Amino acid sequence: MTIVITCFEHSPDGGKGLARDTRVRWALEEVGRPYEVRGVPFPKLKEPEHLARHPFGQIPVFEEDGLVLFESGAIIFHLADRYGGLLPSDPNARSRAIMWMFAALNSVEPSILDLQNVKFAEGDKPWAADRLIVVKDRIEQRLRQLSARLGHAEWLDGEFSAGDLMMVSVLLRLKPSGMLNAFPTLAAYVERGEARPAYQRAFTAQQSFNAASAPA
Amino acid sequence: MTIVITCFEHSPDGGKGLARDTRVRWALEEVGRPYEVRGVPFPKLKEPEHLARHPFGQIPVFEEDGLVLFESGAIIFHLADRYGGLLPSDPNARSRAIMWMFAALNSVEPSILDLQNVKFAEGDKPWAADRLIVVKDRIEQRLRQLSARLGHAEWLDGEFSAGDLMMVSVLLRLKPSGMLNAFPTLAAYVERGEARPAYQRAFTAQQSFNAASAPA
Repeated sequence: MTIVITCFEHSPDGGKGLARDTRVRWALEEVGRPYEVRGVPFPKLKEPEHLARHPFGQIPVFEEDGLVLFESGAIIFHLADRYGGLLPSDPNARSRAIMWMFAALNSVEPSILDLQNVKFAEGDKPWAADRLIVVKDRIEQRLRQLSARLGHAEWLDGEFSAGDLMMVSVLLRLKPSGMLNAFPTLAAYVERGEARPAYQRAFTAQQSFNAASAPA
Repeated sequence: MTIVITCFEHSPDGGKGLARDTRVRWALEEVGRPYEVRGVPFPKLKEPEHLARHPFGQIPVFEEDGLVLFESGAIIFHLADRYGGLLPSDPNARSRAIMWMFAALNSVEPSILDLQNVKFAEGDKPWAADRLIVVKDRIEQRLRQLSARLGHAEWLDGEFSAGDLMMVSVLLRLKPSGMLNAFPTLAAYVERGEARPAYQRAFTAQQSFNAASAPA
């Protein structure tokens, strides 16, 4: 069964791996499934053909044998659940790994995305500079709490899981800001994620895709 | 096995059902599991005893036979996965129901929570009034998209699922703002959720808990 993922034809980050298809590519590499890629140009994201696949007009979308999924969390859970290797077999450990996926997406990523809001979507507003301080404070509070929970462990709960894949992917979005530098154990945790061969393959694949589709 | 959930000793909404324990109570009622409740006073949320259960110092927490889970999405997924009744048995339909849980939490709830940020956490900032307009626009865009996807269907994808439980719970947070009124099919969808006997029992339980623990 062919797996097709939909991503930006040209990622706004130019191939730095910060768009949400990278985490899906990473999960596909971890579970060892080949996939094809469909790039969507920006103007087509809000057109009916794409909205039929993704009601919020975003990326990524995942298609496999008639199943169409959006939301990176849902796609990665589906891959972990169907193909194995990203969730522990012990039922309680499995529930905790899934917990960290939700925690990454619902308790950590929103404040990090707010950094994009304040810099870009609201970058021209008179409050942008002052609000940046508030938003950064909120992110730092989360990083402090997460850092306290991780301690000096290698991963969040035993072996590497889909929970770590998601948390590392979310924290990677902070890299351009330099905010991770104040939390050395978290920075090292992210680096351990990036060092995984599956991540490396995923990163290279999205980079090559962006280079190949770059305007002349 | 006894299930214990941790919630606010006194919910900031005084028992209107908008705190995140209500959705967990709802799921427990849907799957038919009894549970006990531990109320935590506000000042204790950031103390070590609670942080050991919830690294971000929030509620709800779920405990069952040595398993400790935080994140409402993770708790509801665990209940649906372990006890059945909230996820379809067809594998693809199951993945789509889980997709709607992630969509509710990651694509809809963050902009709704931002309404709290702008009104409360940033309510004293000089930008609060102007930013409220931006935040409301962002929420309305999501509601338009969600409304387009739901159409005139009863639930998001076939039978009522954990995805609907989560989406209704998230949309309920908009009730005080009146913003749902502009989207009659979404308002009716939320009302169908609220009309479920399991929701009614959950709502009454959290209301009674808050009344019983209210300061004299």
